[in-house]
Amino acid sequence: MTGRPTLAVVGATGAVGAVTLQILSQHADVWGDIRLIASPRTAGTKLSVRGVETEVVALTEESLRGADVAVFLVPDEVSARWAPVAAAGGTVVVDGSTAFRADPDVPLVVPEVNAGALRTRPRNIVASPGCTTLSLIVAVGALHAEFGLRSLVVSSYEAVSSSGEEGVEALRRQLALVAHTRLGTHPGDVRRAVGDATGPFPAPLALNVVPWSGVPGADGWSSEELGIRTETRKILGLPDLPVAATCVRVPVVTTHSVSVHAAFEQEITVERAHGTLATAPGVVLFDDPETGDFPTPADVVGTDPTWVGRVRRSLDDPTGLELFVCGDNLRKGAALNSVQIAEAVAAEASA
Amino acid sequence: MTGRPTLAVVGATGAVGAVTLQILSQHADVWGDIRLIASPRTAGTKLSVRGVETEVVALTEESLRGADVAVFLVPDEVSARWAPVAAAGGTVVVDGSTAFRADPDVPLVVPEVNAGALRTRPRNIVASPGCTTLSLIVAVGALHAEFGLRSLVVSSYEAVSSSGEEGVEALRRQLALVAHTRLGTHPGDVRRAVGDATGPFPAPLALNVVPWSGVPGADGWSSEELGIRTETRKILGLPDLPVAATCVRVPVVTTHSVSVHAAFEQEITVERAHGTLATAPGVVLFDDPETGDFPTPADVVGTDPTWVGRVRRSLDDPTGLELFVCGDNLRKGAALNSVQIAEAVAAEASA
Repeated sequence: MTGRPTLAVVGATGAVGAVTLQILSQHADVWGDIRLIASPRTAGTKLSVRGVETEVVALTEESLRGADVAVFLVPDEVSARWAPVAAAGGTVVVDGSTAFRADPDVPLVVPEVNAGALRTRPRNIVASPGCTTLSLIVAVGALHAEFGLRSLVVSSYEAVSSSGEEGVEALRRQLALVAHTRLGTHPGDVRRAVGDATGPFPAPLALNVVPWSGVPGADGWSSEELGIRTETRKILGLPDLPVAATCVRVPVVTTHSVSVHAAFEQEITVERAHGTLATAPGVVLFDDPETGDFPTPADVVGTDPTWVGRVRRSLDDPTGLELFVCGDNLRKGAALNSVQIAEAVAAEASA
Repeated sequence: MTGRPTLAVVGATGAVGAVTLQILSQHADVWGDIRLIASPRTAGTKLSVRGVETEVVALTEESLRGADVAVFLVPDEVSARWAPVAAAGGTVVVDGSTAFRADPDVPLVVPEVNAGALRTRPRNIVASPGCTTLSLIVAVGALHAEFGLRSLVVSSYEAVSSSGEEGVEALRRQLALVAHTRLGTHPGDVRRAVGDATGPFPAPLALNVVPWSGVPGADGWSSEELGIRTETRKILGLPDLPVAATCVRVPVVTTHSVSVHAAFEQEITVERAHGTLATAPGVVLFDDPETGDFPTPADVVGTDPTWVGRVRRSLDDPTGLELFVCGDNLRKGAALNSVQIAEAVAAEASA
């Protein structure tokens, strides 16, 4: 490419699309033209990016043609169909869906952790991981680089916005139904109050937690839990890493939290882990519970980094570490990581 | 004791006291006199137990005298002072506080798991574990009896009512402050809306999760996290069991949930684990995610058993198992376990 590269944002009108346009307006501008693309249904909408009103055009071969990089923020089936079309036309596709994450010919990239993987992309497609993996991988990746990861056990506290606007609306409606009540102390009273307002979730989320996200996988696992294992192994280049994940949805609008138990190849101390985390790119260490310093979704939402607190060495294993990690599932967990990958591709092309 | 034994309920006017009186009214009646005792501040109140209006009397040496069994549902410092007074007078004390849980001369009892430990009580005191330990130990204990537990990693999702009425009120007030709003997507907006209405918690709980419960212990651990380790080891008789716990508070009124990663001495399958859990006393197996069957606090609240779902064998370790467990923190997690211990003491005395 000559001059500044052209970027296509495919899925510009969705929730992650909105955050993407915001981030593009905030970041140092490396782009020439930015095209906004969406389904024919929302084409014609005007959205602001870099301070310029831009009309959204429909997703077609024509609208993709000539884009140097395309960020796909669309459902799996749309990515599966259209990413190869764009790639065949010479566009580097950065795909946020699950469609290509497990493909051995598609690198799965988190720039702070495995930027080198970007160099080999035989299909002209780069995948961005799922939001829960992205919530923990920057912190865990930094520790792995220093101490060598041996195993992971994680339990998530997932926000509703990773189920889209529909998930957010369902939680708001449910909270309105249970606010100003004495609910939550008798069997079934929350179920009755919420009725059929469960939205995209299999059970009420107001005054509740729901140990399920994704679709059923093999042997009782959910697709989200299996995805964390597969994606973590691929990003860290540890194909045999033992990973056990339990995914739980909580009544939080935006920002995923993860409780992490990690075992390493060598002894670790809180002091050494702090040293690594305090200087890791993309990580904020916020860890002094005696003064109330630990990350919570309410404090982390809207920010870019992965926040880490509650760092403790396992009392029964000098190679084990516990941490509590929070990351905005719409920013680093989706839009930001895709933009970072796109920017890295642009930098490489102009180098 | 001759005839039916006399029971004293110390702390009858508190939240756990209320549930205790409810349970005593529902259970097969093994008691003669039931005395209701509380602080001088609330003495004189009348409460109903077994359908009889009973006046609450102040906690004194006199009011304890002659009680065969006393259930203490009071703060640590009240137990520390008064339990030995009652015990010295010949009363068997069942203590729900943390004051005696670690005392080697005080058995720590969960009747479904280690009823035998009741027989040896040199101080005439029996302790009941903390609510988070009680949420998981009946299920984990049943699996241990069959497969031999080798290690535990647990992350909790703790309800606010284990911080008493003050915790419940704080959550209700916060939910009213954020209901009907668009809060939860910008940094600090939940903090600003909640203001100083955080109640007994170190951060807002509406639209949030807070990775802290208890008071600071050594090396970054919370007292709750250390308690789960110490109590689990003592109850299971496994003094060297590796236990790593992370305690997180969630916006749920009542019922604790725990994500459990357990490793055993031998290979385990989901089928064998299901077999054990389906027949374990005090356990309800509720595990078919494809049809939406997994426990959630909204469904479990108000019930006695420990509910278990999301049973999965670790994909990387044939001896590892993941489960998600829910238990009502005011019932089995507090009042019910103390009543069960008291009933076991009464049965033994009358045998």
